[in-house]
Amino acid sequence: MSSSNQKATPKAIEVPNPMQSLENERRNPLFSVKEMTTFIDGSSKNVALKHAIFQELERDPNWIIDDYPNISLSELRERTMKKVQGVADKLMNESRSTFMYRMSLISVVDPGFWTRFGVHMGLFLGALQGQATPSQMNYWVQKGALSLRGMIGCFGMTELGHGSNVAGLETTATFDASSDQFVIHTPTSTATKWWIGGAAQTATHCAVFARLIVKNKDYGVKTFIVPLRNPQTFELLSGINIGDIGKKMGRDQIDNGWIQFTNVRIPRSYMLMKYTQVSSDGKVSEPPMAQLAYGALIMGRVTMVSDSANTAKKALTIAIRYAAVRHQFSTGPIGSPETKLLDYATHQHRLLPLLAQCFAMNFASKKLNTEYETLSKNLEIAKSPIETKLVLNDLKEIHATSAGLKAFCTWATLNIIDQCRQSLGGHGYSAYTGLSSMYQDFAVHCTWEGDNTILMLQCGRFLVSSTESFLKGKDTPKNLNYLKKASSENKLSTCSSDDPDVVCGLETLKEGWACVSAYSILRAHKLYSKKISEGLTQDQAYEASAAARLHAAKMHVTAYLYHCLADAVQLPECSDNIKEPIVLLALLFGASAAVQNSGEFIQSRYFNSKQINTLRNKVDDLCVKVRKIAVLLIDSFDYPDYVINSPFGRKDGNVYDSYFNLVKRLNPYKPVPYFDTVIKPLLNRSLETDDGPKLEIDN
Amino acid sequence: MSSSNQKATPKAIEVPNPMQSLENERRNPLFSVKEMTTFIDGSSKNVALKHAIFQELERDPNWIIDDYPNISLSELRERTMKKVQGVADKLMNESRSTFMYRMSLISVVDPGFWTRFGVHMGLFLGALQGQATPSQMNYWVQKGALSLRGMIGCFGMTELGHGSNVAGLETTATFDASSDQFVIHTPTSTATKWWIGGAAQTATHCAVFARLIVKNKDYGVKTFIVPLRNPQTFELLSGINIGDIGKKMGRDQIDNGWIQFTNVRIPRSYMLMKYTQVSSDGKVSEPPMAQLAYGALIMGRVTMVSDSANTAKKALTIAIRYAAVRHQFSTGPIGSPETKLLDYATHQHRLLPLLAQCFAMNFASKKLNTEYETLSKNLEIAKSPIETKLVLNDLKEIHATSAGLKAFCTWATLNIIDQCRQSLGGHGYSAYTGLSSMYQDFAVHCTWEGDNTILMLQCGRFLVSSTESFLKGKDTPKNLNYLKKASSENKLSTCSSDDPDVVCGLETLKEGWACVSAYSILRAHKLYSKKISEGLTQDQAYEASAAARLHAAKMHVTAYLYHCLADAVQLPECSDNIKEPIVLLALLFGASAAVQNSGEFIQSRYFNSKQINTLRNKVDDLCVKVRKIAVLLIDSFDYPDYVINSPFGRKDGNVYDSYFNLVKRLNPYKPVPYFDTVIKPLLNRSLETDDGPKLEIDN
Repeated sequence: MSSSNQKATPKAIEVPNPMQSLENERRNPLFSVKEMTTFIDGSSKNVALKHAIFQELERDPNWIIDDYPNISLSELRERTMKKVQGVADKLMNESRSTFMYRMSLISVVDPGFWTRFGVHMGLFLGALQGQATPSQMNYWVQKGALSLRGMIGCFGMTELGHGSNVAGLETTATFDASSDQFVIHTPTSTATKWWIGGAAQTATHCAVFARLIVKNKDYGVKTFIVPLRNPQTFELLSGINIGDIGKKMGRDQIDNGWIQFTNVRIPRSYMLMKYTQVSSDGKVSEPPMAQLAYGALIMGRVTMVSDSANTAKKALTIAIRYAAVRHQFSTGPIGSPETKLLDYATHQHRLLPLLAQCFAMNFASKKLNTEYETLSKNLEIAKSPIETKLVLNDLKEIHATSAGLKAFCTWATLNIIDQCRQSLGGHGYSAYTGLSSMYQDFAVHCTWEGDNTILMLQCGRFLVSSTESFLKGKDTPKNLNYLKKASSENKLSTCSSDDPDVVCGLETLKEGWACVSAYSILRAHKLYSKKISEGLTQDQAYEASAAARLHAAKMHVTAYLYHCLADAVQLPECSDNIKEPIVLLALLFGASAAVQNSGEFIQSRYFNSKQINTLRNKVDDLCVKVRKIAVLLIDSFDYPDYVINSPFGRKDGNVYDSYFNLVKRLNPYKPVPYFDTVIKPLLNRSLETDDGPKLEIDN
Repeated sequence: MSSSNQKATPKAIEVPNPMQSLENERRNPLFSVKEMTTFIDGSSKNVALKHAIFQELERDPNWIIDDYPNISLSELRERTMKKVQGVADKLMNESRSTFMYRMSLISVVDPGFWTRFGVHMGLFLGALQGQATPSQMNYWVQKGALSLRGMIGCFGMTELGHGSNVAGLETTATFDASSDQFVIHTPTSTATKWWIGGAAQTATHCAVFARLIVKNKDYGVKTFIVPLRNPQTFELLSGINIGDIGKKMGRDQIDNGWIQFTNVRIPRSYMLMKYTQVSSDGKVSEPPMAQLAYGALIMGRVTMVSDSANTAKKALTIAIRYAAVRHQFSTGPIGSPETKLLDYATHQHRLLPLLAQCFAMNFASKKLNTEYETLSKNLEIAKSPIETKLVLNDLKEIHATSAGLKAFCTWATLNIIDQCRQSLGGHGYSAYTGLSSMYQDFAVHCTWEGDNTILMLQCGRFLVSSTESFLKGKDTPKNLNYLKKASSENKLSTCSSDDPDVVCGLETLKEGWACVSAYSILRAHKLYSKKISEGLTQDQAYEASAAARLHAAKMHVTAYLYHCLADAVQLPECSDNIKEPIVLLALLFGASAAVQNSGEFIQSRYFNSKQINTLRNKVDDLCVKVRKIAVLLIDSFDYPDYVINSPFGRKDGNVYDSYFNLVKRLNPYKPVPYFDTVIKPLLNRSLETDDGPKLEIDN
């Protein structure tokens, strides 16, 4: 083929240079990417620490991650375990806040490792911190609970037949006064501890949730530390059966297992006795209030909201950088070069509202974090019963908000990941472009530490019960002032403007989202009240209004997210330079979410049909505006290529070469191993129709 | 632990018998499951054939599928190849319709095998059938293209840098008159053939899409058969580079690969010349009309609509049977037994509208199939140009409808699978409950044979251009009569009733969906016309109205699906016994989709806000009614346990025991392989803080 042949049709087959395509997006930046990064991460100190932590990981040979699609489950588990020691040493040697930040970044790099380490650190240690007496805590720390020297813990809550409903667990811990021991026992197969992370190959001890039985009386579920393996030999201890739960959708770095206990005896002191105590003569003293287990639950949810935002950043980096590189079809006259994906309206509508949502989650996560930290401090310093009661009100609110946000944000991010994956076209289906495994790893966030549907219903229950309180003249939770206003004035406001810039304005949308949220909460409350007046119990009335409650919670959380993003502009850390992009993102998020929920907006009479059409057009305009800064916004997430771990999200745009090289490196050529045994016989087989003796029927 | 201990709290820890729980759902059935199965499958002959085919697969040792999560990629590929011969023999020995039915069932059992076989049968053979001359066809059949004896084909269309836009492909086929050969060449790395199923380990020949270059002139993309490997040795032929694309999100049964051609010479006759011909002296004759490649494209889409329905049946079987077995929390007074998941309103709202959607997809698939078969016959028998033109109009419509349905139904089913997975709680994350791999396998349906977004836009373009035609007084496509009515009368109808049974009635919803669909199409058309009047080209105007067009297509397809389900009641095959369940499902689908799109219904003025609230309440009622027959409806899908391949979807309800046994069988106990090398050193390590010489600073 001569070169002149290629020249014959230069335009049709010209492929624009990918690196140049991406670089073009960074010319004449409309805002300072660096300032945006600082704003997103919270401080320049955080940015520097992030760089340092990512660099440490990238240089550590145990932290190679780009070959994950090609290594077996057992290799993956072994490599993951090799990483534990280095991180455990950090845990011992750096401040708690630095270590927590490290873990949040590690979760973006390797979510499976995060889980494996987190089971010991978050769940096992968390159980000790929350439920052990000071001397018990001291004992287990001496045994190595903090350093992982001498012991590794796992967390034995869920059972084969029991998940979300902890009160329904079947495992028993029966007190035997004669030996001053508890007998831990798995009575049925559905009582088998199931999904226990670290049980299959890692843990020496387990924090077992079991029903406390003393003198034939069932005191409900308490926590007991049960040794599983001899730390010197790793042999299973007597009465312990353990098996591997095997392959999962994702996070195969962690060895989930099942455990059965057959009359396993532990000293009485291995029951965690901060709240409930059992004396040697079998006297059980229970705390006057239900256990304050709220705190630990909230922590996990706060973490998952931030993980949602961070994972969404990673997914969007891949999809948006690729969209600025990939050219396909042409919108110009025949013979024009192919058009960038990012220049198509549908591609913009597909990705850019999700980018705005990601920013909203980022700032919501910051707000939730701050509220949670303030609360934790207030809980510590509260002295009087009145003070404590006030703090407990805040706790209830944060519990509900964090439940709703966890559910909403993990669902939102799962959707973002899959939308991003599909936006890569066929390449999204490759294991080497990063989004399929991201989906598989992330999916479990929607289920663990509270199934999302149940959490949404909890949040909705709080909203309905708060409404009930306002109407009785009681206190207002901070983030529900809008609801109080609506329910006390007994009317919702209406947007009366026809000016598109007013209809799609920051304040109009703030009022609108508050209004729609109040509308849907009041609807759920009305239904609930109706059911109460019909004679149902509270629980039955809540169940009968479940669909409305779930919907109300979704509206409330969307409003919360929008308010966080719209309010971010007013934060002192938001420099003038970056205000405009934040405003654009807030409008895009607020308006596109309003269009998606147009029925609700019209029903509440905040917007009319015409205004909804105005918003629709505004979303088109906003997409065009945000498109111009999309790559800069992605750059401001500031994740290095090592962390993005996808040739499609490379900062330099060198997508195709690096993808091809990765595929070749991980899948070197080799002859087909089953050619002789399977394919050759197929290709060379004889058929019934081949020549041969013919069997005729005599007649 | 004595038995009296257990009696102390019998109610809290009583786990209802799973098998009994499921069996209870089948007492006093409200309709004949057998008749429903016949109706769903189309005929009792189909039902019998289905049973026979499933039985053959289940008994064939090559068709074991329950251990897939635990076998390696290379084992999976080898086992898949072992199955090819048996299926190829069926292809040779049974009718085309029986074989097609067999393949549609195989797709439910093992989608990865379906793809591996389908690449040869559907794509490679399809290319021959569509583009080879009769004597070329005869030649390749002689070589083994039908029997797979002597050759196996693959399909070389997509390239690393080019997917959906076939016209942008870079690979060249340059005619060399001196040798009467084509030279096939890969000019750049982005021109590398990519994603080619069967290339890595299976194919001897490839149907290569390449730009025909004759005497320096580019004639666009044509198809060429290029030998890849020596069938006797499987060595790559000269000039062929092939590599393995490796791990994918799913469907690892098929060996996708990449191919580069370096000046590979093939005889001129290896170009498929049904339409475009190249003579030995380099004269190119092109057909008067663009190639009728429509037919092959439609076939793939018709298949994927039916696969969507069938896969949704499988997913819903797992989720709904489990929901009838699993008990969790209690809605009754304290001490009541835990409540069935299926009895929770949120669980009903989560799954039952999806069940209704699955039925809608089933009947839409039947209708589409029938229309496609009629069309194919008409195309064959059309004699005069006028007849042909009429048939081509139908072809255009089916092309657009099938594009929209393929996109909508594959998205819908992907969502159904994930909703079902999440509804299993934590167990949904196990590889052994079947839904995670179903998601991973199914996901690619949204991308291949036309990316869903692009297909939706195509469908939308057809709707807008049809509107343009009506307004000019031209013919009406069959399924768009509602649109013609709306656009000619220049007004849409309104539902004026306040009676809940009328508002949520079959006919009201039919009219409503037609109306909302017309409303959104007219909106897209209006925007398009505005852009045209502003001086944009047709293509630019379509691009400028892309978001509205996409939305219009979604509304149109939803309307189409609803109409198919609502009309199913009138089919002669729908016996009285099963009419009521079908009506309930149609109402549930139509009403819940209307509530989801409430903004659109209110904006079009078909329903007002109050009527939407009426529908909301009706959806609650319908969920309760459908819940009563949910397990019977699932039973009527009539998939054996072998096909469902999930302990959670077992017909006998024995969920926990079979799940536990499967996990134990596939993950037998073994000592931790990296205890000595990794864990023991961690547990026994010394720390900096350990006793030892202290380093003091002199001062």
